[in-house]
Amino acid sequence: MKKISLLGATGSIGTQTLDVIRKHPEEFKLVALSVGKNIDLARKIISEFKPELVSVQTKKDYDQLRLEFASDTKLTYGEDGLVEVAVYEKSDILVNAVLGSVGLFPTLQAIKAHKVIAIANKETLVTAGHLVMNEAKQQQVMLLPVDSEHSAIFQCLQGEQDKNIERLIITASGGSFRDKKREELKEVTVKDALSHPNWSMGAKITIDSATMMNKGLEVIEAHWLFNLPFEKIDVLLHRESIIHSMVEFQDGSVKAQLGTPDMRVPIQYALSYPNRISLPSSERLDLAKIGNLHFETMNFDRFYALKLAYEAGKAGGTMPTVLNAANEVAAGAFLNERISFLQIDELVEKALERHNVIKHPDLDTIRTVDIETREYINSLL
Amino acid sequence: MKKISLLGATGSIGTQTLDVIRKHPEEFKLVALSVGKNIDLARKIISEFKPELVSVQTKKDYDQLRLEFASDTKLTYGEDGLVEVAVYEKSDILVNAVLGSVGLFPTLQAIKAHKVIAIANKETLVTAGHLVMNEAKQQQVMLLPVDSEHSAIFQCLQGEQDKNIERLIITASGGSFRDKKREELKEVTVKDALSHPNWSMGAKITIDSATMMNKGLEVIEAHWLFNLPFEKIDVLLHRESIIHSMVEFQDGSVKAQLGTPDMRVPIQYALSYPNRISLPSSERLDLAKIGNLHFETMNFDRFYALKLAYEAGKAGGTMPTVLNAANEVAAGAFLNERISFLQIDELVEKALERHNVIKHPDLDTIRTVDIETREYINSLL
Repeated sequence: MKKISLLGATGSIGTQTLDVIRKHPEEFKLVALSVGKNIDLARKIISEFKPELVSVQTKKDYDQLRLEFASDTKLTYGEDGLVEVAVYEKSDILVNAVLGSVGLFPTLQAIKAHKVIAIANKETLVTAGHLVMNEAKQQQVMLLPVDSEHSAIFQCLQGEQDKNIERLIITASGGSFRDKKREELKEVTVKDALSHPNWSMGAKITIDSATMMNKGLEVIEAHWLFNLPFEKIDVLLHRESIIHSMVEFQDGSVKAQLGTPDMRVPIQYALSYPNRISLPSSERLDLAKIGNLHFETMNFDRFYALKLAYEAGKAGGTMPTVLNAANEVAAGAFLNERISFLQIDELVEKALERHNVIKHPDLDTIRTVDIETREYINSLL
Repeated sequence: MKKISLLGATGSIGTQTLDVIRKHPEEFKLVALSVGKNIDLARKIISEFKPELVSVQTKKDYDQLRLEFASDTKLTYGEDGLVEVAVYEKSDILVNAVLGSVGLFPTLQAIKAHKVIAIANKETLVTAGHLVMNEAKQQQVMLLPVDSEHSAIFQCLQGEQDKNIERLIITASGGSFRDKKREELKEVTVKDALSHPNWSMGAKITIDSATMMNKGLEVIEAHWLFNLPFEKIDVLLHRESIIHSMVEFQDGSVKAQLGTPDMRVPIQYALSYPNRISLPSSERLDLAKIGNLHFETMNFDRFYALKLAYEAGKAGGTMPTVLNAANEVAAGAFLNERISFLQIDELVEKALERHNVIKHPDLDTIRTVDIETREYINSLL
C-alpha cells in the first residue's frame, strides 16, 4: 500500500489522481491533500477519502472546514499548509499537481523529507530545475513525471542507458488554434482558446497549449528531468496526440509511448512505478479505428512562444523563471479578457528582453525575479 | 569484444550482419561462419573477415576452398559443419541467419554449449519452439530476436515485467500485393511477388510476405519468444513499416519501436544487447517527412495464410511444423513457377487438414513430420 500526499486535489490532474486512487483501494491510500478555492469539491473529497491532513488556501476556509471535519481530519492552510502536506510523515509519495510556481518550495521540502515526487507541476522544474534536481540527487530521491509527454519519455527509457539517448521527440497536438495562421490569431477569444481538440485540461494549461508555451515549458522540464541539452530535445507536431512522445537512440532505433488521451494512465504509472497495474476503465488504443497518425515539422514563427521558451531555456539561470512568470500573468490577463491572444507572446518577449540573466540563482533570487517579472507584466496591462 | 559465429553469412540477414560487424571492429569479431552455395561471395567474406572456421554446404566446395584458404582458416562442410560453427568454442554469440528448418539442430546444440543466440531463423522456433525454449531455460541462455518485429517487442519490453503485458501488436506491411483483392491474386507472377514495397529481403521471405505467411510464422515465433497465448498476439496492417511492432500493457499504455526499414538496426541491437552502440550509416527516422502513418485491421479472409498460421499455432504440437514445411515447399514451387500464387495457401491448408497433431513432439518426431509433409506437398505438385 502506497500512501499518497496530493497537492492540488481539486484541479484537473488532482481529480484524475483521485480517480486512480479510488479505483485501486488495495494499492493506494490518500493520507494528505491540499485544495485551493473549490471548497465544495474539497468537502466531497474529504468525505470520500477521509485523509488525515488537509490544507486549504485561506484562513477563512480553514476556520469553516475545521468546524465540519476537525474530529477526523487535521486541517491547516496557506503556504505553510502546502509544505505540511508535502512532507507529511506518513506519506510515501507526493503528487505535486498545483498550478504555478507555488509548487516549488513544498517540492524542495518533500525531497528533503525523502518523499518520492510525482511531478505534474511543471513550473517547479522550469523555474528552479537546477535546485530541484540537485536536491533530488543529493537525497537520492526519484522524480517521476506525470505530464503525458514526460511520462512517455520516462517509460521509453526504462531498461535503457542514458548515454545511448540521441534525442527526445516531444509531440505537440498544436492546441486549439493549430490550423490557424498567425495573423488569424489576432481576434481569437478566450472561449475559442479553451476548446482543446484532444485533451480536457485546466484553463491555464489550455491557453498555454494554444500559444504553444505549454510545449516550451515541457521542453525546459525535459531538459532537467532527463539531463539533456536543448539541442537534443525536439518538438514534433502530431495532431492526434496518440504518440505521447518518443526517444531516439544512437543506433537509430526510436521508442514511443502511445495511448488514448487519458491523463490517468501517466498519473497511475507514476503511482505504481516501477510496476504497472490494470486500469480497466481507460479506453484502449485502437490504431486501426484511428486509421491515420499525422506528423508535421514545428513552425517556430507560427508558434512563437516555443521559440521564446527554447531561447530562455538555453540562456538558463533566471531566464526560464522570467519566461514562466511573465507567461503566467499574461495568460491570466488573456483569460480575464484584458489583453488579446497575441499579446501573451509579446509581453513574454518584452520580459525576456528586459532581463539580465543571473546564473545559478538560489531560491530567494528566483522568488525575487519571479515577483519582479509579475510586477513588470502587470505594469504593462 | 564479442566473438560471433554466423550461420548463413551470404544471405540477406547474413550480409547485413557482416556490415554491422565491419562497422564496429572494436566491438565485434567474426570467428566462425557458414555459407550455402554462393562460393564467390564466401571467398570475399573469408578474405575480408579472416574467420577461424568456415563451413560450406557441399564436399565439392569444401575441397575447392581448402586449397585456397586452408593455411589461415579451418574448413568444414554439411550439417555437421553447421553444428561445428554453431558451437565453436571461441564464440560468445551465435547469429542464426540460415533459411528454413535446417537451422534447428545447430541452434539446440549452441544453446547446450551456452552460446547467446541471436535468432533470425524463424523456422527454428516455429517448428520446435517448445524444445528450443525449454533448452534455453534449462541452460539459462538468452534468445535475442533479430526479426524487426520481435526486436521491436523485445526493445519495448526492456525494463518491463512480463506479467503486465496485455497483448503484442505485430505490424504487417501487407507485402507486395497489399492493395490487391484476393481474386486479383490468381494471375500474379513471381516477379510481381518479389518486389516488396518496404524491405529488401531474400526471395523466400518476400514470397512469405506476399502470402502473409511470414507474419503467421512471426506470430508463432512471438508466442514462443515471449511466452504468450495466441489470444494476446494481434496483427495490424501498417503499410509504411515504420512502427516495427508494439506492446500494450495492462494499464492501457502502449509502447512501440520505430525506425526506417533497416535490418541492421535489430541485428546490431541483438549483438550489442543490453547496450546500444551508434550506427551512423543508418538513415534516421524523420516522421515529419513521412507525414502519415496508416493502420488497418488485418483481413483474415484476404490474407488466408495468416488464418492458417493462427490455427496451426493454436493446435500446437506438430501442427506448426506441418505449416512451415508445407509452406517452404509450396513457396519454393511458386518461385520455380510450378504452381500459382494462390495454390501456396491451398497446399498448406491441405497439409494441415490431413495431419493428425502429435502433442509435445521430440526432435525426431519433428524431423519425421517435416520430411513427410515435404514429400506430401511434392507429391501434389
